[in-house]
Amino acid sequence: MKKIIQNLDKIFYPKSVAIIGATPTTNKVGNVISKNFIDGKFRGEIYLINPKYKKILGVPCYSDIGKVKGNVDCAIIATPSKTVASILDECIKKKVGGIVIVTSGFEEIGENDIAKYIREVALKNNTPIIGPNCLGVFNPYTKTDSMFLPMYKLERPKAGEISFVSQSGAVGSAVLDLAAYYGVGIAKFISYGNATVLDECDYLEYLGEDDDTEVILLYIEGVKDGKRLLEVMKRVNKKKPIIVLKGGKGAGGAAAAKSHTGNIAGSYTAYNAAFKQAKVVEADGINELFDIVKIFNQPRPKNNRVGIITNGGGLGIITADAVEQMDLKLADFSEDTKKKISEILPSYGNVGNPLDLVADSGVDAYKKAIDIFMAGDEIDILLIIVLMQTPPVDERIIHVLTKASDDRRKPIATISIGGTYTEAYRKILESNGVPSYNSPKAAVRAIKRLVTYSEYYEKLKKE
Amino acid sequence: MKKIIQNLDKIFYPKSVAIIGATPTTNKVGNVISKNFIDGKFRGEIYLINPKYKKILGVPCYSDIGKVKGNVDCAIIATPSKTVASILDECIKKKVGGIVIVTSGFEEIGENDIAKYIREVALKNNTPIIGPNCLGVFNPYTKTDSMFLPMYKLERPKAGEISFVSQSGAVGSAVLDLAAYYGVGIAKFISYGNATVLDECDYLEYLGEDDDTEVILLYIEGVKDGKRLLEVMKRVNKKKPIIVLKGGKGAGGAAAAKSHTGNIAGSYTAYNAAFKQAKVVEADGINELFDIVKIFNQPRPKNNRVGIITNGGGLGIITADAVEQMDLKLADFSEDTKKKISEILPSYGNVGNPLDLVADSGVDAYKKAIDIFMAGDEIDILLIIVLMQTPPVDERIIHVLTKASDDRRKPIATISIGGTYTEAYRKILESNGVPSYNSPKAAVRAIKRLVTYSEYYEKLKKE
Repeated sequence: MKKIIQNLDKIFYPKSVAIIGATPTTNKVGNVISKNFIDGKFRGEIYLINPKYKKILGVPCYSDIGKVKGNVDCAIIATPSKTVASILDECIKKKVGGIVIVTSGFEEIGENDIAKYIREVALKNNTPIIGPNCLGVFNPYTKTDSMFLPMYKLERPKAGEISFVSQSGAVGSAVLDLAAYYGVGIAKFISYGNATVLDECDYLEYLGEDDDTEVILLYIEGVKDGKRLLEVMKRVNKKKPIIVLKGGKGAGGAAAAKSHTGNIAGSYTAYNAAFKQAKVVEADGINELFDIVKIFNQPRPKNNRVGIITNGGGLGIITADAVEQMDLKLADFSEDTKKKISEILPSYGNVGNPLDLVADSGVDAYKKAIDIFMAGDEIDILLIIVLMQTPPVDERIIHVLTKASDDRRKPIATISIGGTYTEAYRKILESNGVPSYNSPKAAVRAIKRLVTYSEYYEKLKKE
Repeated sequence: MKKIIQNLDKIFYPKSVAIIGATPTTNKVGNVISKNFIDGKFRGEIYLINPKYKKILGVPCYSDIGKVKGNVDCAIIATPSKTVASILDECIKKKVGGIVIVTSGFEEIGENDIAKYIREVALKNNTPIIGPNCLGVFNPYTKTDSMFLPMYKLERPKAGEISFVSQSGAVGSAVLDLAAYYGVGIAKFISYGNATVLDECDYLEYLGEDDDTEVILLYIEGVKDGKRLLEVMKRVNKKKPIIVLKGGKGAGGAAAAKSHTGNIAGSYTAYNAAFKQAKVVEADGINELFDIVKIFNQPRPKNNRVGIITNGGGLGIITADAVEQMDLKLADFSEDTKKKISEILPSYGNVGNPLDLVADSGVDAYKKAIDIFMAGDEIDILLIIVLMQTPPVDERIIHVLTKASDDRRKPIATISIGGTYTEAYRKILESNGVPSYNSPKAAVRAIKRLVTYSEYYEKLKKE
């Protein structure tokens, strides 16, 4: 495949977009996509295409893309599958810069002829084509958004540094919605479905060069060229961490993957080996994907020794159990650290790891304990549990935790479990870039993956 | 220990309550507890006790409990530890029906003398005493509430059928807050701290006889009499399912447990064996405790064959992976089921398990698929994934899922992952009694535990 076809700038940074299959019918695919651009305040030209209408949503509508006078950087095709081939011809004739086909009904149901044609057209004309059978793309920086899930149902995340390549639209949109909910920023999202022309390797290559992207999430079910994937993962992972989730591991899931995007899931053992060889971090669930990526804004830990601070004894104990279960270490405090801690504890407090500040303690105790943990060479990672429900913990905790994260001295993660009040605080922390978890296990698992990446990183530097 | 001391009716259904250590200082322990009763609309008599004040929060205040004219069913002690012994004497003199001591500073810091005195007083006078070093009790039916976490920070759950006995206040309150957030009902909550007089066994016995309680959650760190716990668990578990979480499994957690409530955590291997012998379901995390208990309102599955319905292919595949990883089975559809399914699918749909209704499908497709799955003898459990973000899924899905749960033909669990819109729907489902999860793994793990309990139940019937 020629390099030029992998350049998706015309799709992610279009000056003009054509939505082919635009419609006034609320919630139909072509309607939602049109709204994304119109209501989403896309700043370029928006050309709606449908021979049946003169205007849709108050915007002029063209009978076909050939009627558009200006250039079209990005064409989004949302028409029935039988019309796709001829529409593709029109797009090529119009010399569009890139195409997203969201329509389904191709390889995944055995319709391979049109798929073959799509591939030939793309290669012959050096035109990047994403899809078909996908949600397409989302770029919060330019408001390019072909996701046909209405904005009132799927909140769009703010602009950030995480990019996500997903073979599945459902997996992708669920993670984006979580990101929006907690105020976590996204750089680029690509749902690529059948991978008829461009595949996961091409997207990894593109994002590897992308200035907005710092971390890459990847969800794959089946790939066509495992060898190339390994080679590309290896190369891109040296530039930016890749976190991967494989779907279709068992027999049942693999069978479902075949009818999902028409791709063979293959042996999970082989994938697992490839991930290890490429030194990419593997996630084992969709929630984990989101949990892990949140902590990758933190500095790399030097080692695996965790210091736990808590104001709830039982939560500290459960978290310590999780740390030990996941083969991380509870840091042994030095004499100096012990002495400093004993000075800040009330008379009935105990110096230990987890360090239980007890429920009477307020924000100042957290601040002091964090300072001590940051200074202690025997502690690599801070895991800070805050039972927000206790009376002395007030909004100043936000500042203390945000500062601990912003200083970037050591990686931190926070745990708070609760309802409306606690969730409000968690959202504020997340949107401040402080990794926040509502589950000890999820937090510890994310730390474990960050430690693994840190070990990988040291090896990658030497390769 | 005499049986009468285990009767906690005077504490959970008091006609009158005395709060010793009541104070007007906002957010102090004695202030929060007073507010719980006053603002929480407790219907009995409320006696505030503190020699320093004539009135607190507009309610008359007594210098000591002896000055109260009427009977006192339940006394809550929230004064400094050094005053507890003499206040206890006054409570006994007043012939209170039960006592909750929330104050800390006893066995957990080596102060064993007062603890010994508390024990002697309780036994000599046949008076039940909960605590010390605990949050105490919560009963939403009577609004009895000694939890000193303000109501604006910790929402109180509605009345329901789940009771929770927790050695840790933090673990207990986090789960209660989650329950309130998702509208899951609670019967009784007991945070018992040091277990100086009554311990986990006594509470299990009491809840075993309690008409409001259908399922019991138990969080323990260390127990004094393992043999008795085994015997009591065995007996109570035959009447109502017990779900247990053990804290302090590893060396670090166990050390922390000792300084938390003064109890020895002991070998986890022994606990694990005892749980198996008593056939109680074991949880492996605080979030899991909540995830599991939600599904126990469902009927017991006949076997472990899961049928998955989804409108998002990738989510179906990940969930199928989780089913296979957790040693449950993906149901093999009978020819009859296959035929029925093919009749409701669009032309490009595939008959498989997971059954992918595809994103174009709306509520009617779910209704039909659920009916087919309920009728098929080869399917024991329904796992229904709803990507709420898709345009055709609207609020009627609530009715369809609630009906599927209410009919109690087979157990169901639902999965929806997303932000504000999806979470709103999840809360409605939960408060309708429909088990709803935002993680495939969490849902599958809960199903696995329900299957385990179902197997246990068949054996328990024969014992």
